[in-house]
Amino acid sequence: MGNIMLVVAYDGTKYCGWQVQKNAITIEQKIYEACQKLFSREIKIVGASRTDTGVHALGQIVVLKVETSIPINKIPYAINAYLPEDIVIRDAKLVTSSFHPRYNAKNKTYEYKIYNSRFPLPQYNRYAHFYHKSLDIDKMKKAARYFIGEHDFKAFCSTGSSVKTTVREIYKCEVTVEDKMIVISINGNGFLYNMVRIIAGTLIDVGRGKIEPDYIIDIIDSKDRSKAGATAPAKGLTLIKINYD
Amino acid sequence: MGNIMLVVAYDGTKYCGWQVQKNAITIEQKIYEACQKLFSREIKIVGASRTDTGVHALGQIVVLKVETSIPINKIPYAINAYLPEDIVIRDAKLVTSSFHPRYNAKNKTYEYKIYNSRFPLPQYNRYAHFYHKSLDIDKMKKAARYFIGEHDFKAFCSTGSSVKTTVREIYKCEVTVEDKMIVISINGNGFLYNMVRIIAGTLIDVGRGKIEPDYIIDIIDSKDRSKAGATAPAKGLTLIKINYD
Repeated sequence: MGNIMLVVAYDGTKYCGWQVQKNAITIEQKIYEACQKLFSREIKIVGASRTDTGVHALGQIVVLKVETSIPINKIPYAINAYLPEDIVIRDAKLVTSSFHPRYNAKNKTYEYKIYNSRFPLPQYNRYAHFYHKSLDIDKMKKAARYFIGEHDFKAFCSTGSSVKTTVREIYKCEVTVEDKMIVISINGNGFLYNMVRIIAGTLIDVGRGKIEPDYIIDIIDSKDRSKAGATAPAKGLTLIKINYD
Repeated sequence: MGNIMLVVAYDGTKYCGWQVQKNAITIEQKIYEACQKLFSREIKIVGASRTDTGVHALGQIVVLKVETSIPINKIPYAINAYLPEDIVIRDAKLVTSSFHPRYNAKNKTYEYKIYNSRFPLPQYNRYAHFYHKSLDIDKMKKAARYFIGEHDFKAFCSTGSSVKTTVREIYKCEVTVEDKMIVISINGNGFLYNMVRIIAGTLIDVGRGKIEPDYIIDIIDSKDRSKAGATAPAKGLTLIKINYD
């Protein structure tokens, strides 16, 4: 038997992000503990995306290295039995031992939600950033297009991350709105630390008229973090899907 | 100055419904307390709909009988300052002292949400009933149409309620689905106790093949509660809007 790939959804509200760390409850740790209980032995788990504190997921990908006689279609039910309600295994399938959820990922889709209204809605509190001032959606749509393509996104990367290159390719960056809920949908071959949240914060600056849409080109060219907008709050961000070959 | 009409949204998860009662925290009580603090005097509040424990609202209507010098457009901000995050005043306007939120209501719209998938999603846990077996949407759509019109809905009313008549008129009853989320949208001139939840439970019975769509006619005709389906869980229900002349 090879390794097991899991598709995981979670509400990140109560967790200190994905990755196991000391003195903090993380999603990786909860899944690790659930698997330990289920399989009653040492297991190794590897996640595709190290989501931050408060960030949500519908399609996080996790690889479990474990030998088990549980049929693959029963694995989600078996692990879910040991997980809290805010973390759910949605699917499981067998993968070869060479499959790596991060290195083999072809592209990822994130969504950033902004509820743009005079007053917040309790129903949206957990999964959307509330912004009460009026936003010019047409300008935001126009600005979003400038992110598409291969660029050095150094200006859209929080300091403190060590990566070989800050060049990434964005395949899709789209702003849609329905009933005052603005959704920024972005797909790319990889994302820098806080990149989607900084793009969201910058698009909010465009929407409120602080900067013009084509100024996005200048920010990208500057490679200067201080030229881009604020890092928008974590709760608006959801990892939607990770695609593989 | 006349009375003040408020449009209220709430997440009913933590509350024992709308109406003030002893030894339980209700939404009416939270709004009453917030208004007491804000206006520092006796006030009277009347809600349009006595939503049950766990039921949500986007458009509950409340009338406040109070004299105040606070401008009407500032009222929502002022009351919200004293409310918890899961209750929000979305709008306020002046109404005549003869306006009654319940007696003057022309029709109400409710939505009942069913997330129909193999596994639940944490993001939907609070506002949708999770149902894992496959449901035949076309049959549910067909069945929904039989509720439209003026009928005696005694079979769709929980016992324990004392009403003069169990006749109500339903103007719209529609089933839609998007990404495995089934939404039953229903508009009528009034609803009996648990009526929408029993209709939802009965439509689930149609979807899973327990009864045929046209059996809805027989259930209505029977005026027998035991012929209809189970009362679907409260968390799937949201009071969307109350319309007035």
